[in-house]
Amino acid sequence: MGCALCAAIKGHRRMLIDEPLSRWIEADYLLETYSEVEKVAAMMAGEQSSGTFIAIPGETEKLKSQYAASVTALTVLEDAVTTPSFPTTGWTQEAGRRLRRARLTLRWPLTNIGASLPNLLATIAGNLFELKQVTGLKLLDLRLPDAFADAYGGPRFGIEGTRALTQVEKRPLIGTIIKPSIGLSAHDTAQLVKALCEAGIDFIKDDELQSDGIGCPFDERVKQVMQVIHHHADKTGRKVMFAFNVTGDLDQMRKRHDVLLAHGATCLMASIHSVGLTGFIELARFSQLPIHAHRNGWGYMNRHPLLGWSYIAWQKIWRLAGADHMHVNGLSNKFSEDDDSVIQSAKSCHTPLFAHKPCVAMPVFSSGQTAHVVERTYQALQSTDLIFTAGGGILGHPNGLSAGVRSLRLAWDLALAGQSVATASAHDQDLRLALEMHA
Amino acid sequence: MGCALCAAIKGHRRMLIDEPLSRWIEADYLLETYSEVEKVAAMMAGEQSSGTFIAIPGETEKLKSQYAASVTALTVLEDAVTTPSFPTTGWTQEAGRRLRRARLTLRWPLTNIGASLPNLLATIAGNLFELKQVTGLKLLDLRLPDAFADAYGGPRFGIEGTRALTQVEKRPLIGTIIKPSIGLSAHDTAQLVKALCEAGIDFIKDDELQSDGIGCPFDERVKQVMQVIHHHADKTGRKVMFAFNVTGDLDQMRKRHDVLLAHGATCLMASIHSVGLTGFIELARFSQLPIHAHRNGWGYMNRHPLLGWSYIAWQKIWRLAGADHMHVNGLSNKFSEDDDSVIQSAKSCHTPLFAHKPCVAMPVFSSGQTAHVVERTYQALQSTDLIFTAGGGILGHPNGLSAGVRSLRLAWDLALAGQSVATASAHDQDLRLALEMHA
Repeated sequence: MGCALCAAIKGHRRMLIDEPLSRWIEADYLLETYSEVEKVAAMMAGEQSSGTFIAIPGETEKLKSQYAASVTALTVLEDAVTTPSFPTTGWTQEAGRRLRRARLTLRWPLTNIGASLPNLLATIAGNLFELKQVTGLKLLDLRLPDAFADAYGGPRFGIEGTRALTQVEKRPLIGTIIKPSIGLSAHDTAQLVKALCEAGIDFIKDDELQSDGIGCPFDERVKQVMQVIHHHADKTGRKVMFAFNVTGDLDQMRKRHDVLLAHGATCLMASIHSVGLTGFIELARFSQLPIHAHRNGWGYMNRHPLLGWSYIAWQKIWRLAGADHMHVNGLSNKFSEDDDSVIQSAKSCHTPLFAHKPCVAMPVFSSGQTAHVVERTYQALQSTDLIFTAGGGILGHPNGLSAGVRSLRLAWDLALAGQSVATASAHDQDLRLALEMHA
Repeated sequence: MGCALCAAIKGHRRMLIDEPLSRWIEADYLLETYSEVEKVAAMMAGEQSSGTFIAIPGETEKLKSQYAASVTALTVLEDAVTTPSFPTTGWTQEAGRRLRRARLTLRWPLTNIGASLPNLLATIAGNLFELKQVTGLKLLDLRLPDAFADAYGGPRFGIEGTRALTQVEKRPLIGTIIKPSIGLSAHDTAQLVKALCEAGIDFIKDDELQSDGIGCPFDERVKQVMQVIHHHADKTGRKVMFAFNVTGDLDQMRKRHDVLLAHGATCLMASIHSVGLTGFIELARFSQLPIHAHRNGWGYMNRHPLLGWSYIAWQKIWRLAGADHMHVNGLSNKFSEDDDSVIQSAKSCHTPLFAHKPCVAMPVFSSGQTAHVVERTYQALQSTDLIFTAGGGILGHPNGLSAGVRSLRLAWDLALAGQSVATASAHDQDLRLALEMHA
């Protein structure tokens, strides 16, 4: 810092690292095949750019030099794989050849598609998962040139905007999900919100199953819930953030967004796999509220370790498209994901996408969360920039939901102060019962 | 027919079958688990309606009776399964319990979400693929109440509209894909289209990798290609259908649609996994042209036999949303799908969705198609309502693309007349060479 030589070297390194990337799209894959990994990698590059299954007169060397994707890295892994990750049809195992796995990188000229997220999907994740030579293929990561940063807005609120709206600093937002997921009327929901506000909650969200059914119409729910939230804010000076699920057809999402604005709501929720990419990009362009991106359906994109998308790659698409909050599951969750994967996902949301446009989103922890996992979550994440949501963990607390919220706040305060939550629980019944909920 | 009693019985049966369905959403799954299948099925129903991982005070019996999903069918399969289809974390195998598979049906009250396709996805295909009790889960099929038919347009053109625009009757449309997929300029593309028109093609499509890159800008491509197509139509009275890939952000898709209209184009193409559901629904609402729905990316949704979506279920969503043409792969394709699955997919596009609104779409066969598979395709499908596309199969024909088109037309004429294509090929060099391309 201050040294001209250091600055020059740093500048040079940046030039070497960043300059080529400004013209290339890159994606990393984990591949499994009976065939030669180098051959399959080259086939993937061909299939996803200028090639097809047979030589075509028009595919000249000049054309290839400008448009062909290339394999820029390939490392054969030494995993002992005996069973293919998924079966393949019409592919005869080559005599004596065993299953191999490799990590590889494909690179495309940006000019093939320009800075378009929808066309990016067809390019880096199009037909290649269907190749018969492939018995396992995971898209691990992707790197985009700066032109993408210029073409898309990224999160408009992100961590800072969310903190400003909720007035929560230096600790996670403590949140909850309305439960039962579906079945409460607008009035019931508002009553529950009232109790949650009084219990000290920061953030509440609709369950993704709650949308605009006749038992709890969206407009009525917003009206009644926001009345309660405003009333509470008038008394306390703090406005609880409620993420209303606007998921629906595009015209419905527009109307619901405007209803939210009219009622002074401060957040909307959308299920990314229900809305899809272009609808989400459009939502992010017109939304004047933070977007809470729910990832339900993620299992069919990722559950198999050798098929589909990694969260590392997937979250980049949605952050750039405009997601302010991204669901990442939670430690010791009720689903199948292990803790390391959850923390890696959360950290990926904190990692800048572009040097000049970081697009950092707030990770949302959820699924079976109680005070039990707070200390480990903080130790692993080493950050307070998260929304920590517990549905049953708050609403199902034996001493009621005030005790549920209190136990989580207390657990986080202890964890942030470097105290043992378990030790402290001997002195606090709410905390002790909260810990027992997960035992 | 004509018998009052028969009619009454038929009416009664319809009432029994159809009436309850008018209020329920149903989905069928193939499940694999170490746990009791009945327990996991009930957990799935709970997770996707009013339940969560812990008892919640608000989940009353009255609420459950109105909102809970239920398991309406469950058949344990006798498959001998020794290895889980995918691994699971945090789930201890119950002592002595072996892996079981079951086919089951879940049923939701329509009123939970109303007739909303995006919210349908979160309900029937939300978190449940992530449950730790699950080591395999495939969504096999779904049935929707009539309210969905009223809420969405379905294909506006379908088979009849496509035939009317192309003036092709009583045989499949013979189509091709511009290859190389990417790299031809607008001028090169138009020249190729000119040659294809002269060769007698019915249908041409952009490759899904071709969108609006600077080497072949969309507007310029449309202008030059449509000039050629109009010129050919003026001479022959037949307008070749070209499906231009409009995939992009929503505003881009609108503009591209309008460019197509202005130039008299007769079809647009959209990659469904790139565009996503709400963008596609919106596209279908404003489009005045048939929508050619490309399914690239399908591999990550379906490649594993026990994960994700079946095509039978998935195509229903997109047909109802407005797809006129649906990709189904092709026989002896370059991918991993077997022929039975391809034919089942194509037949599903022909199967009415609702009695009063069939939403029938035209299946698109592609991927390594040549004259080699024509006879088997017709014998298996028993219909001429398809688009039969060959990229390399036409453009890579040793005698040139006229010979490529001619060999396919001839093969279909022979197949439709019940003649052997192989036998006839002894008398026709183009056909013989076409058959050899796939050998």
